Amino acid sequence: MKSSEERWLLDLRASARGDSRAYDLLRSLTDEVGPRFSGTPGEAAAVQWALEAMRRAGLANVRTEAAPTVLWSRGDERGGVAERVELLSPRRERLVATALGSSVGTVGGAVEAQVVEATSMEEIDRLGRARLEGKILYLHHVMPRLRDGTGYNAGGWARTAGASRAAKHGAVGFVIRSIATHSLRIAHTGILHYDGDAPKIPAAALSPPDGDLLHRLLADGGRVRLAMELGCRPLHAGESFNVLGEIPGTDLADQIVLFGAHLDSWDVGRGAVDDGAGCVMALEVARMIGALPKRPRRTLRIALFANEELGAGGGRAYAEAHAGEASRHYAAMEADQSDGAPWALRVPEHRRDSPASKRLAALLAPLHLELDPGPARGGVDVGPLHARGVPFVDLRQDATRYFDLQHSANDVLENVVREELDAATGAFATTVALLLHMDESLR
Amino acid sequence: MKSSEERWLLDLRASARGDSRAYDLLRSLTDEVGPRFSGTPGEAAAVQWALEAMRRAGLANVRTEAAPTVLWSRGDERGGVAERVELLSPRRERLVATALGSSVGTVGGAVEAQVVEATSMEEIDRLGRARLEGKILYLHHVMPRLRDGTGYNAGGWARTAGASRAAKHGAVGFVIRSIATHSLRIAHTGILHYDGDAPKIPAAALSPPDGDLLHRLLADGGRVRLAMELGCRPLHAGESFNVLGEIPGTDLADQIVLFGAHLDSWDVGRGAVDDGAGCVMALEVARMIGALPKRPRRTLRIALFANEELGAGGGRAYAEAHAGEASRHYAAMEADQSDGAPWALRVPEHRRDSPASKRLAALLAPLHLELDPGPARGGVDVGPLHARGVPFVDLRQDATRYFDLQHSANDVLENVVREELDAATGAFATTVALLLHMDESLR
Repeated sequence: MKSSEERWLLDLRASARGDSRAYDLLRSLTDEVGPRFSGTPGEAAAVQWALEAMRRAGLANVRTEAAPTVLWSRGDERGGVAERVELLSPRRERLVATALGSSVGTVGGAVEAQVVEATSMEEIDRLGRARLEGKILYLHHVMPRLRDGTGYNAGGWARTAGASRAAKHGAVGFVIRSIATHSLRIAHTGILHYDGDAPKIPAAALSPPDGDLLHRLLADGGRVRLAMELGCRPLHAGESFNVLGEIPGTDLADQIVLFGAHLDSWDVGRGAVDDGAGCVMALEVARMIGALPKRPRRTLRIALFANEELGAGGGRAYAEAHAGEASRHYAAMEADQSDGAPWALRVPEHRRDSPASKRLAALLAPLHLELDPGPARGGVDVGPLHARGVPFVDLRQDATRYFDLQHSANDVLENVVREELDAATGAFATTVALLLHMDESLR
Repeated sequence: MKSSEERWLLDLRASARGDSRAYDLLRSLTDEVGPRFSGTPGEAAAVQWALEAMRRAGLANVRTEAAPTVLWSRGDERGGVAERVELLSPRRERLVATALGSSVGTVGGAVEAQVVEATSMEEIDRLGRARLEGKILYLHHVMPRLRDGTGYNAGGWARTAGASRAAKHGAVGFVIRSIATHSLRIAHTGILHYDGDAPKIPAAALSPPDGDLLHRLLADGGRVRLAMELGCRPLHAGESFNVLGEIPGTDLADQIVLFGAHLDSWDVGRGAVDDGAGCVMALEVARMIGALPKRPRRTLRIALFANEELGAGGGRAYAEAHAGEASRHYAAMEADQSDGAPWALRVPEHRRDSPASKRLAALLAPLHLELDPGPARGGVDVGPLHARGVPFVDLRQDATRYFDLQHSANDVLENVVREELDAATGAFATTVALLLHMDESLR
């Protein structure tokens, strides 16, 4: 790439700081549409919002593509018993808790049982049936606050797999300290997966201080009893839509740079950080690149995916629907870490020492983006393209604050910082623009 | 006071930093007793806990004194409709809200009405019946974060008096942006007072982001409808107890230095910051002073008051029961600002320039306590002693974080910092010790 071209990249970055409409778009999405939970009218409204937003951003080929979704409800609609996790002994107190996504409800009344604590998945197995039969398992997993967000790896696994792990040993309920990094009375939901060979038991997350309370009360052999009453409705299949739009390329127009985010959100917040921020950055990156006097060489495709939170059906549907053009995907990237400052770039492992990667890194260095030694992994939505040979490029974002917010009621506009969102938008815009123009292949 | 005496004061302060048991006491109170809401079994358990804690701290004359209390419930017991404030249009979303203390419930189903916003009490009157009849009034009061906590003056008044102000103009419901300083999805309760000449309408606080959402949706003439459904039970009278104990004095034993805090808490948290911290500081100050080789000249009386949050019955009961010995109160002070660092001392206005005040200030200067130009005001609990001529001494505590926490679910142990609590305990202990030994009168 020539140095005149490097100059417009700097202009692009500057415009993202000064003129970005990302925050206003996010306000529109979260105020006017609000929660966009899989299978709900909110998700359907978000699809209409996204179609309109893409057209306004000047994208071409704006369209929907069918994506399987699921319907599940925690049962907190008007009048119903919502979610109750209550300390029964050594004293009574209703705790701050929320059902894990796709949990079964408590049919025929509350589950009331003694609580046994484990601090790891391995300890659940060590406790075994002798200790867990008929009990509620409390998993005391304390997630560390790390810039790269990797505390979510073990944490997400504990939340996803813990209930079945306990149920195999006869537990009748599962509660986990929220997979989150704060100590507020806010509970964080997130999906769980039931194993086919274990009974499905009700599962909920406690706010961190409520988990810590159980931990203290259980210390030194304390006896604790809980009631769990969850109004969750069974999971069943539905349909939603991915929303796609493009900035057509020029001489390399048949090559696609895919930049995605997910349009659905959890029900408990308004999906501002997870992943409204990613959606509006994608929309704004496309608008900015479309408005440049210099047309992109490759085609930029924006995809706003359905059903990331409750099954990742949107990403799978895209990979299947576009299998025939997988080889035309020059690169795929996604944004799903809110307004976190991008601090590192990842490219495909075998391309890390290539001139292309070094060129990318050198051009992005003024944005304080270093070339990360790890391989690009994509994310939940573009992930299914890996098996089809699509190269990923990751912008790693600072996740220090992200796990204070995602999957919780605190996922609202007020917890996105306009200046941070603009800066992240500029980093994504610059990276995407480079990918649209680079000579070298990433394959 | 002689300089040898000043030395033991420094020793006292040092011991508060190193050996304070305040945090462990607070853990015991909040874990083992938990919420101590007026008129509930939790409040009764707290009285037993306090009696035992006073005996263990070595206090004499440990006793209870009857105090009127009230019973009121927000109706979130098992199975009941708890509290629902739901956006009906322009879209549906359940908001994070909590009833204000002593609010009436919505009898015969939800109140559903259009919302009208006011940003001040005066604006409620300007809107008048033409705009408010049959509407829900939303009071958009944004409390400032100030070290001295004075943002609570106007905020507390808006919360206390707003509902009746709106009802006089025909409003059928009242919602207020939580009187709090954060932007979390946490709603803050607090008492309201109904005027006798206005209809009693249901009243709730919204979390700050939910208030801000209404504010944005109402801008530019937007039409917003809300549903309010509150299960609050009527207020009725009950009885609880103040808990008192003493460290007897020596040559001036008939003079009383009263140091108090309130034992009751709101139902939504565990009363760690409001006012468990004050209670354990009072207990620990007494223990430390009682353990000194030097006996106090005056008598230290610790009072843990009932029913501060829902009527202030404990403080009134104390003032009435002890009217006959009011003149024997050398000074009264209270602690009700959690672990906030004490930063200023206030004395009775007419004593501000006295040698006694200057001596106090000079001795407390190493604790970074300045003499504040304002008059000591006491607080809700010792306040009723003012009319009986009892001099107050205030330690003003840093309230920068306090209104993130009080009256909310976040009022838990995890939001008290052990080191801060110890430092505050040291400052209170030193001040109380000075009051127990000073020659000069504060009257």
